[in-house]
Amino acid sequence: MVDQDLLATLRQELRRGSVVLVCLLALRDPNYGYALLGILESAGVETDANTLYPLLRRLERQGLVSSEWVTDDPRPRKYYRTTDTGSEVAGLLLDDWSAISKSIEHFKPGDRK
Amino acid sequence: MVDQDLLATLRQELRRGSVVLVCLLALRDPNYGYALLGILESAGVETDANTLYPLLRRLERQGLVSSEWVTDDPRPRKYYRTTDTGSEVAGLLLDDWSAISKSIEHFKPGDRK
Repeated sequence: MVDQDLLATLRQELRRGSVVLVCLLALRDPNYGYALLGILESAGVETDANTLYPLLRRLERQGLVSSEWVTDDPRPRKYYRTTDTGSEVAGLLLDDWSAISKSIEHFKPGDRK
Repeated sequence: MVDQDLLATLRQELRRGSVVLVCLLALRDPNYGYALLGILESAGVETDANTLYPLLRRLERQGLVSSEWVTDDPRPRKYYRTTDTGSEVAGLLLDDWSAISKSIEHFKPGDRK
């Protein structure tokens, strides 16, 4: 019997490191925070606004995304976009991700319940 | 130009959540900490002893691995093994991992440098 709180913590740990990678990949198409929340949810890395907005600001400070206010819509929105540096970082993280994936595949065979 | 300290931090974040999953999968074959360090390294989730040993103790407290001293060898070693609960948790985390992988694949196409 799996303790549900423990499982929730472990799942969150697993997602946390992936959120940055998914954000950097997704924001190669510029988007605003609220829309990105939906994208992250459908990407299996559900995140709440209280986590995402500080993360976007951090990524901007780090030069991995840039932002721009778009005022064409009835409601002005801040659009984020992955920078060239951010794209380069995403590529490097993707290599790590692929290496980890490969070994997880290697350990997986056979005995799943 | 990518800041190397920043990249190291992001890579570590990405690995951190995966280490638990790889440990639980790997320790379905009982093993001792030092050997597990080598397994993790070749799995792309390199971890140092100062991180791994507390993690193993934590996983044991959480009931996800169990341990046993083996004194047959010249040097007694503590072997860890994934419990049934740990296997169940690994299966659930694996489902999350697969879902995240799928969306990373989805975002990836085309424009890798």
